[in-house]
Amino acid sequence: MKINEQRLKERFDRINGLAVTDEGGKMRLALNDADKEGRDLLVSWFKEAGMEVTVDDMGSIYGRLPGSDPDALPIALGSHMDTQPNGGPYDGLFGVMAGLEAIVSIKESGADIKSDLILVDWTNEEGARFVPPMLASGVISGQFTREWVYDLKDVDGIRYEDELERTGYKGDEKNRLGDVKAYLEPHIEQGPVLDAEGHQIGIVTGALGITGLDVTIRGEANHAGTTPMAMRKDALAAASDAILKIQANCVEFGEPAVLTNGIINAQPASKNIIPGEVYFSVDLRYHTDEGMAELEKQTIAIIEETCKAYGATVDIKQYWRAKPAHFHETIVGCVEEAASEAGLDAIRIISGAGHDAVFINEVQPVGMIFVPSIKGMSHCPQEDTKWEDIVAGTELTADTILKLDKAEVSR
Amino acid sequence: MKINEQRLKERFDRINGLAVTDEGGKMRLALNDADKEGRDLLVSWFKEAGMEVTVDDMGSIYGRLPGSDPDALPIALGSHMDTQPNGGPYDGLFGVMAGLEAIVSIKESGADIKSDLILVDWTNEEGARFVPPMLASGVISGQFTREWVYDLKDVDGIRYEDELERTGYKGDEKNRLGDVKAYLEPHIEQGPVLDAEGHQIGIVTGALGITGLDVTIRGEANHAGTTPMAMRKDALAAASDAILKIQANCVEFGEPAVLTNGIINAQPASKNIIPGEVYFSVDLRYHTDEGMAELEKQTIAIIEETCKAYGATVDIKQYWRAKPAHFHETIVGCVEEAASEAGLDAIRIISGAGHDAVFINEVQPVGMIFVPSIKGMSHCPQEDTKWEDIVAGTELTADTILKLDKAEVSR
Repeated sequence: MKINEQRLKERFDRINGLAVTDEGGKMRLALNDADKEGRDLLVSWFKEAGMEVTVDDMGSIYGRLPGSDPDALPIALGSHMDTQPNGGPYDGLFGVMAGLEAIVSIKESGADIKSDLILVDWTNEEGARFVPPMLASGVISGQFTREWVYDLKDVDGIRYEDELERTGYKGDEKNRLGDVKAYLEPHIEQGPVLDAEGHQIGIVTGALGITGLDVTIRGEANHAGTTPMAMRKDALAAASDAILKIQANCVEFGEPAVLTNGIINAQPASKNIIPGEVYFSVDLRYHTDEGMAELEKQTIAIIEETCKAYGATVDIKQYWRAKPAHFHETIVGCVEEAASEAGLDAIRIISGAGHDAVFINEVQPVGMIFVPSIKGMSHCPQEDTKWEDIVAGTELTADTILKLDKAEVSR
Repeated sequence: MKINEQRLKERFDRINGLAVTDEGGKMRLALNDADKEGRDLLVSWFKEAGMEVTVDDMGSIYGRLPGSDPDALPIALGSHMDTQPNGGPYDGLFGVMAGLEAIVSIKESGADIKSDLILVDWTNEEGARFVPPMLASGVISGQFTREWVYDLKDVDGIRYEDELERTGYKGDEKNRLGDVKAYLEPHIEQGPVLDAEGHQIGIVTGALGITGLDVTIRGEANHAGTTPMAMRKDALAAASDAILKIQANCVEFGEPAVLTNGIINAQPASKNIIPGEVYFSVDLRYHTDEGMAELEKQTIAIIEETCKAYGATVDIKQYWRAKPAHFHETIVGCVEEAASEAGLDAIRIISGAGHDAVFINEVQPVGMIFVPSIKGMSHCPQEDTKWEDIVAGTELTADTILKLDKAEVSR
């Protein structure tokens, strides 16, 4: 289905023009003034399209266009308009703009849609202002309690709830997303695969599970000049060896397994003292429950074995665990069929990143559509997607809604 | 020569009792109140022994006992009484107490000594209060300018010169250590070799040279979940591999080569972002100039080659360079002969740590005597040396002075 490319472009430009950093990045931290301005614009566009506007108790905004069958469950679309501190033009915003444009285009086409169509802008997806990410979808899906989120503070000590009130977006619990026939989230890939392999669309089948480990290795701090190499219990040598071995094991384990060591530091952190203690983080992701458990087991065993060889001890604590997400096969199928009928070059893909869709998947039938990120970049001003891919993704969103409206989606 | 063990013990106890931490460590940071009290005691003991007391412009204190030949160059002994923040009982203090006791015992023995005997307490050897270490001996030997040292501030912003004035230890440039026949520094090993191998004395032949490198590796920061292992330019993977390889190369290079990576950190330091940049330090030590140059060359080449294999770039800057020190063979020979005649189990050893003696070696004939450190520990409350080794080291100091007084030491 053709969409109104010019309107879509203008709306992207309006929102992206609200708060631009010196480097050209976007700065709509959740519930800051620019984010509020963007939300006000979205509400005005909902009203312009004849959609009913509601806000829930987490500050998420819903626009709803009635369908022809009052008994049909609604079809929801959504994503987020907040950004990282110096973010790109499409991370989050693409899903909201594509969803809105798809709904408005469908309405303008006069197509008969049985389901109500809902578009959601989730609050604080990025976790950049209020940590952790996906707070609103997290409360809706039972990951966090509302009271815990209300009391979260940003770096300036400002509470989440107070910012909802200040911006006029503290709504009602009864407006939360209820049962839907399907929840569909269009998003940029935030990874290099589609771009590197030259595909235009990713049919997202689920998301990788995540295990996070805090690893602390203890050897023996000693004088850099007076301790012969053979008499050392160097915690950093043990850590370096462990990091190389668990990364190599992950490669051998096979795709889509990924393992990242993002933080490392050595104590006492003196240039002329052999590190007595080293901390490093492990972020481990895989797409099946059994695989996750096995990869985690292997990783821990390799770290322990390596430390032993260096005469060091190790303490490993789990700081995070998220199960792999498996999206609804009927919704995935609707995306795939629609892409195929539109002649798009599409592949099935698993999301390595977290999304509101991953939390909503815990309680509702879910699917996602990815468009390519040039060079896989995101959370930076260089983040970009070809305009033709933005348009293709938006049209595919509309086509998928039409298919979902006709499909039987099991619950 | 027998020394007065009880007097030696009492004097150690007096100084070590001045400022004791909760953990039993010593806390005589350079020129703090406890260090000043220790210095006042030392001055009183100099006077008690009939020694002339002077202070130079860096705050170092000299006690001088006249010899029988006014034309003979003096023989100097020395070390430092300042400690690390939570230091041990003998690091530094051993050399001052052993030197004083040796001089006093020689005087009491009635032996005819031609050279004046000088004992020096060098200011701020540790570099714990005013950074870097060995400031007073560094100025005397031309490593630093006096004005630069005067303006150095501790963490509270207090200037070196102001503390000299406050404590009453700002003396005169003309009192600096002049030409001597020999400078001999007794010290604890601060390493595990003598203790592990069961020797009582280290005849120090010199000190390792040091090259310090700041290494910054730049890869590509990326999303931990969405970037396949094969598409990464992980700066930490490159750093880990480089660290293991340069350490292995150092082991292969052979003793006494040592290589330490004391500091490491990754940027942007987020658990779910692949490190785009990693910094680590390299502290590299060896005993010959040619070997130092070769080991440094190999180390840099390995780091560069490793980074290339990871698609990363690397920037290597030298932050420190100290040439290997070779002590005076006649002085080393006097220590060796005296140890042998006393029936001590002594081996030749190279110091891996820096000492005031290493700087003085740039301008005067120098030697050192090591006593064992139990388990090689230093700069901590657990630092310890068997009392019989302290006594043996002190007696050997006296015996060496007697030999030096008779020896021809070339300049």
